[in-house]
Amino acid sequence: MEGVDHLDHERRKAQFDVEAMKIVWAGSKHNLEVSDRMARLVASDPVFEKDNRQRIDRRELFNNTLRKAAHAWKRINELRLTEEEASKLRQFVDEPSYVDLHWGMFVPVIKAQGTDEQHKKWLTLAYKMQIIGCYAQTELGHGSNVQGLETTATFDPKSDGFVIHSPTLTSSKWWPGGLGKASTHAVVFARLITDGRDYGVHGFIVQLRSLEDHLPLPGITVGDIGTKFGNGAYNSMDNGVLRFDHVHIPRDQMLMGLSRVTKEGKYLKSDVPRQLAYGTMVYVRQAIVSDASRALSRATCIAVRYSAVRRQFGSHDGGPESQVLDYTTQQSRLFPLLASAYAFRFVGDWLNWLYTDVTRRLQANEFSTLPEVHACTAGLKSLTTSVTADGIEECRKLCGGHGYLCTSGLPELFAVYVPACTYEGDNIVLLLQVARFLVKTVSQLGSGKQPTGTTAYMGKVEHLMQCTCDVQKAADWLRPSTILEAFEARALRMAVTAAKNISMASNPEEGFSALSADLVEVATAHCQLIVVSKFIDKLQQEIVGNGVKEQLQNLCNIYALSLLHKHLGDFLSTGCITPKQGALANEQLRSLYSQVRPNAVALVDAFNYTDHYLGSALGRYDGNVYPTLYEEAWKDPLNDSVVPDGYYEHIRPVLKQKFRVARL
Amino acid sequence: MEGVDHLDHERRKAQFDVEAMKIVWAGSKHNLEVSDRMARLVASDPVFEKDNRQRIDRRELFNNTLRKAAHAWKRINELRLTEEEASKLRQFVDEPSYVDLHWGMFVPVIKAQGTDEQHKKWLTLAYKMQIIGCYAQTELGHGSNVQGLETTATFDPKSDGFVIHSPTLTSSKWWPGGLGKASTHAVVFARLITDGRDYGVHGFIVQLRSLEDHLPLPGITVGDIGTKFGNGAYNSMDNGVLRFDHVHIPRDQMLMGLSRVTKEGKYLKSDVPRQLAYGTMVYVRQAIVSDASRALSRATCIAVRYSAVRRQFGSHDGGPESQVLDYTTQQSRLFPLLASAYAFRFVGDWLNWLYTDVTRRLQANEFSTLPEVHACTAGLKSLTTSVTADGIEECRKLCGGHGYLCTSGLPELFAVYVPACTYEGDNIVLLLQVARFLVKTVSQLGSGKQPTGTTAYMGKVEHLMQCTCDVQKAADWLRPSTILEAFEARALRMAVTAAKNISMASNPEEGFSALSADLVEVATAHCQLIVVSKFIDKLQQEIVGNGVKEQLQNLCNIYALSLLHKHLGDFLSTGCITPKQGALANEQLRSLYSQVRPNAVALVDAFNYTDHYLGSALGRYDGNVYPTLYEEAWKDPLNDSVVPDGYYEHIRPVLKQKFRVARL
Repeated sequence: MEGVDHLDHERRKAQFDVEAMKIVWAGSKHNLEVSDRMARLVASDPVFEKDNRQRIDRRELFNNTLRKAAHAWKRINELRLTEEEASKLRQFVDEPSYVDLHWGMFVPVIKAQGTDEQHKKWLTLAYKMQIIGCYAQTELGHGSNVQGLETTATFDPKSDGFVIHSPTLTSSKWWPGGLGKASTHAVVFARLITDGRDYGVHGFIVQLRSLEDHLPLPGITVGDIGTKFGNGAYNSMDNGVLRFDHVHIPRDQMLMGLSRVTKEGKYLKSDVPRQLAYGTMVYVRQAIVSDASRALSRATCIAVRYSAVRRQFGSHDGGPESQVLDYTTQQSRLFPLLASAYAFRFVGDWLNWLYTDVTRRLQANEFSTLPEVHACTAGLKSLTTSVTADGIEECRKLCGGHGYLCTSGLPELFAVYVPACTYEGDNIVLLLQVARFLVKTVSQLGSGKQPTGTTAYMGKVEHLMQCTCDVQKAADWLRPSTILEAFEARALRMAVTAAKNISMASNPEEGFSALSADLVEVATAHCQLIVVSKFIDKLQQEIVGNGVKEQLQNLCNIYALSLLHKHLGDFLSTGCITPKQGALANEQLRSLYSQVRPNAVALVDAFNYTDHYLGSALGRYDGNVYPTLYEEAWKDPLNDSVVPDGYYEHIRPVLKQKFRVARL
Repeated sequence: MEGVDHLDHERRKAQFDVEAMKIVWAGSKHNLEVSDRMARLVASDPVFEKDNRQRIDRRELFNNTLRKAAHAWKRINELRLTEEEASKLRQFVDEPSYVDLHWGMFVPVIKAQGTDEQHKKWLTLAYKMQIIGCYAQTELGHGSNVQGLETTATFDPKSDGFVIHSPTLTSSKWWPGGLGKASTHAVVFARLITDGRDYGVHGFIVQLRSLEDHLPLPGITVGDIGTKFGNGAYNSMDNGVLRFDHVHIPRDQMLMGLSRVTKEGKYLKSDVPRQLAYGTMVYVRQAIVSDASRALSRATCIAVRYSAVRRQFGSHDGGPESQVLDYTTQQSRLFPLLASAYAFRFVGDWLNWLYTDVTRRLQANEFSTLPEVHACTAGLKSLTTSVTADGIEECRKLCGGHGYLCTSGLPELFAVYVPACTYEGDNIVLLLQVARFLVKTVSQLGSGKQPTGTTAYMGKVEHLMQCTCDVQKAADWLRPSTILEAFEARALRMAVTAAKNISMASNPEEGFSALSADLVEVATAHCQLIVVSKFIDKLQQEIVGNGVKEQLQNLCNIYALSLLHKHLGDFLSTGCITPKQGALANEQLRSLYSQVRPNAVALVDAFNYTDHYLGSALGRYDGNVYPTLYEEAWKDPLNDSVVPDGYYEHIRPVLKQKFRVARL
C-alpha cells in the first residue's frame, strides 16, 4: 500500500483550485514559497526528527531539544537565512525551547525598554547568541497581577548599582521559559526601591550563569520547575525557578529607556511616551492569534483526513462502511472548527496590519486609538486561544479511540497549546478588560464622542437598538449584511444592558464585580463580531483562483451561523432574531455543511503542512493510517521484550498463588 | 508552616455539618467507614506511593504498576478483605492496570454469557487470579460498530473446535486493556462461521500466553499499542494489539450461555432471553456515572481549595490580595461544576437502584421497560462523562499557570479520565440512540401507550406543550416545581419539533441522519432533565445533619439554573420561558453563588479525599501550596545536575560562536 494515495478520491472531489487557496492561506506567493522551503528543509533533516518524543525521559528529551536548537542555529548561519526564513525554520522544528524566549521576549523587551547604549551592548550579544536570555517576570505567588511582584531591586549608592533580592518564598521567579537550565541572562522584573521609596516594577538585566562553565553566579539559585502536562509537549522547555540572595548588578543594567535612576539614587521618568510599549503588546498578541490559527488548522487537518479514512456503520450488503466524515454529527462539530481556523487566519492578518498602523500612529505621537486597540487585541487573544484549545481536544475526540494515542499527534498538540489560554494574560482577565472598555464606550455614546475602530458599530446605536432581522427563508442568512447586523445588534444590546445593570449598583466597581460573569459574555459577543466582520471584509477583497472565494464564503457563513446557533440565547434574549429565524439559520448551516463536505480534504490540504510538521499517523497526507499505527505500536519500549519486566516478580507469584502461603 | 491549616479560616465559615455531609456523599455511614479505612490503608503503604509517575519512563512505570497490583492482591488476601473493601482498595490505588479489566470485564462477561459449566471452570480460575483475563472486542478498524468486527472463529468439525483468525490488518484486536503484556487469557469477540454461514459476533475464551513462562502461544502475536495521552495516566495500562494466525481452541471455549454450536457444527440459540445482557450493561454504566462524579469531585476539590489559597489583585493599602475564590467569574465557572459533581453522585445512586430494579424485572421475565432503561443509561453515561472531562480541564484552567504543572494533579486526572467519553460507547453515538428512542416515544404519544420511567413526563404532553412559566421575581426560580416544569417543557418541545422535522423528510432514516446534530441536542435536554429531577427527588428524602439539606438545595438550584443559562437558546426558542425570566434566573444564580461561597471549602472536604488520593500540591487539605510546589520542583530529573546534560555539546558551542567557523 506504500505510495498509494488513499485520499485521492477525496481530492478529486474538490471544487476549487487548491494551489490558489494555499497562497490565500499563506498570505502571499512569497510566504508560501518560504514556508514550503523551510518546512521541507526541516522535514528532510534527520536531526529534526521528532517521532520519539513520547518514549524518552525528560533528560533525554531536553538534551535532544538542545541539540535541535543548536543545529537550527548552525543551519541558519550556514545557509545565511533571513530573519523571516529563520523564524519559519524554528516554527517547523516544532518543539518549544529556550530559543523561543530568547528571540521572542528577551530581545524585544531590551529593544522596547532599553536605551540606545543598552541596545548597542546587549542586543549585539543577543543577536549573535553570545548570551542566552529569558524574561523573568512571573513569581510563584504572582501571575496576572504584575504590580504585586515581590522581588526587590534596591539601589545601593555605595556600589552604584542595585541589589536584587527574593524576600519571600512566593517571590521566587517561577515559570519563565528557558530560565531553568539554558539561559545565561534574564530580564528580571523587580520592585525598584531607592531612597526608601518603592517605585513599582521595573526591568533589570541580570547575569545568571557563568559564561565559562554555566554554573550559577553567587547568590543565585536556579532550576527547573518540573514536569508539565503532556508526554513531550512543553517538557522540552526548561521553565524555571529563580531566587536571589542579595545579588549585586551595576546601575546601568536597569532598563532605562522609560525611566532611570541616577548615580545619586534619584528616580527620573524619561520623556519617551509610555504608550510606546503598546506596540510590542500588539505585536505579541498578533503572533499569538497566528499561532492559534496554525494550531487549530493542524488539528482540523488531522481530524478531517482521518474522518475521510475512518469508516463505521452504514455498510449495505457487505460493502464498505460509511466514511465518518459523511455523518452530519461529525460535520457539525468539525466544520465550524475548520471555519474557525480560516477565520482566525484572516483576523490574524488584519492584526498584522493593525500593528503596522499602530506603529505609524505611535511614531506620530497619536495615542487616541490605543485603548480601543488594547481592548481589541486582548479580546482576540482570549477568544482565539480558548476556541483553539477546546477545538484541538474536540478534534481529538472526533478521531475516536485512536485520537488518544500519542501517534495521533493530537494529545501532544493539545498539551503544548493549552498554556496559551493562560500566558500573556489569563483569558478571563483579558475579557474583563475588554468588557470594561465596552461599558465605558457605551456610557460615552450620548456624549458626542464617536467610537472608533472595532467599536465603530456602536455609533449606530439608535439603529442597532431597534432594528429587526429580515430573514424569511434559510438562504437569507447568506447575506453578509444580515449576518453583520445581527452580530452587531447582539453585541451592542448586551453591552447596553450590562452598562445599565452596572449603573443600578450602589457603586460602579461593585456592580462591575458582581456582574463579571455576564460581562465576560458581553466581551465574547464583541470579539466574535470582530472575527466575523474581518472575515466578511476579507471576502470583499480580490481573491484569485477557481472556486476559492466560494469556498471561503461557505466557511465564513459556517463560522458566523454556527456561532449564532451556539449563542442562540444571546440573540433571542436581546430580540435580535426570532426563534423561527434561529431555526432557519440552523437549516442553512446543514446545507453549508453538505457543500463543504466534498471540499473538506482539499481545504485542509491548502494548509500545506508536511507529514513531519503534522506528526500524526491519523493525519498522513496519503491516508495510509492503519499500517502506520500498527508499525508505530511496536516501537514502544514496552515491546522491547515479549515478556515484560516484572513478570517473575509481580505476575507469576499472583498466578501461582504464592501470596496465599502468606495467609496464616 | 508545617502542620498549620491554611484553610482553617475557610473551614470555620461553613454553615453546615461537614461530617453529616460526608455520610450523604458516601451514601451511608457504612460506605463512609469502608472508604475511609481503605483510603488510609492505601495512603499509609509506601508501595502505593504515587508521586513519581511523571518522572519515570514507561517500562519503569509499568513495572511499578505490576508491583502495586500484586501488592494490592497480597493485602486483599492477607487482610481477608470483602469484595466491597477490595474494590475500594483498588480504587484508591488510583492507577489503571490489567486488574481493572480482569475484574471489570473478563469476569462479568463470562458470568453473563457463559454456561454453568463454563462458570465453574473459568470463574474459579479467575477469582483466584490463576489466570489473568481481558476483553478483546475492539479492532484496529472497528470500534463503535461491533457488528463490523472482522476476526473470524470458524468451526472445525475435525478438531471439534474453532479456528480463530485475523484475516486483515484492520481486524487486529486493538485497545483492550491488560492485553498487551499482562493477560494470559482473553474473551475474544469474533464472527462465528460454521457450515459456511456467518452467524455474527460471539465471544470465545482464548488462552494467549503460556502459564509457565508467559510466552505467547503459537499463532498469537501480541503487544502493547504504544504511548497514550498524558504523562502517567493510562500509560500504566498495557492496552494491546493481538493477531491470530489460525489459532485452534476447543469447542467448549465458545461462551455458550446465549447460543451454542453443536459437535456437528449446528448453531443453536438457547432459550435464555437475550435481554438478560441488559443487566450487565446497566451495571457497567452506573459504575461509569459513579466514576464521573468521583473524577469531577476530585478536580473541583483541588480547584476550590487552591482558589481559596491563591490571591491575586485587589490589595488595599498593601494588605493581602483577594482570594481568587471571591471573584464572581471564578465562582460562575467553578460552582456549577461542584454542583454537577453532587448531581452526578445522586443520579449515580439512583442508577444503582435502577440496576437492582432491572435485575428483579429481568428475573421475572419482564422486559417492557428495557428500551427506556437503555436510553436512560446510555444518555447518562454520555452526559456525565462529557461534562466531567470538560470540567476537569476547566478546573485546571481555573488553577491558572500552576494547573499546568503535573504536581497540580490535574493534567493526570484529565488525561486518565477522557477515554471515558469514548469507551463503552462513543458519547455522540449514544446520544443518537437516546434521540431515536425519544422520537419513537413522541410518535407513539397519541396511541394510548403511556411512556414510563424517565420518559413518563412525556405523557403530560398536552400540558407541557402549552404551559407558560410563572416566574415573576428571581426567587421564584427556587421552586422545584417551576424548575422541573421548565426542563420538562424544554425537553418535550425539542423532541416534538425534531420528530416533526424528521417526518417531513422523504424517509425517516434520511430525516434522522440529516437532523442528527439537532437530535444530539434533543437527547442532551432529556438527559439534563433526568439529572435535575433525580437531584430534586433526593431532596424530598430525609437528610440529616445541621444545614446539610440547605447546602444541597443551593447546589441543586445552581445545577439547574446554570444549565438553563447555558442552554438559554433552547428555553427561549421553545417558548418555555421569556427573556425576562432568563435574566431573573441569572440574577438568582448570582445570589446562589454568594451563598455557596463561604461553604465551598467544606463542601469539597465532604468528599473525604486523602491527600494521597488527590495527588495534588494545589489541592492539599492544609492549603500549604507554595512550599510544596517549590520542594517538588527540585525532584525533577533535570535538576539532578546544576549544569544540564548537553551543555558542552549544544549550548557552549552556540555561546562561543563555534558554528560561525563553518561559514566559508
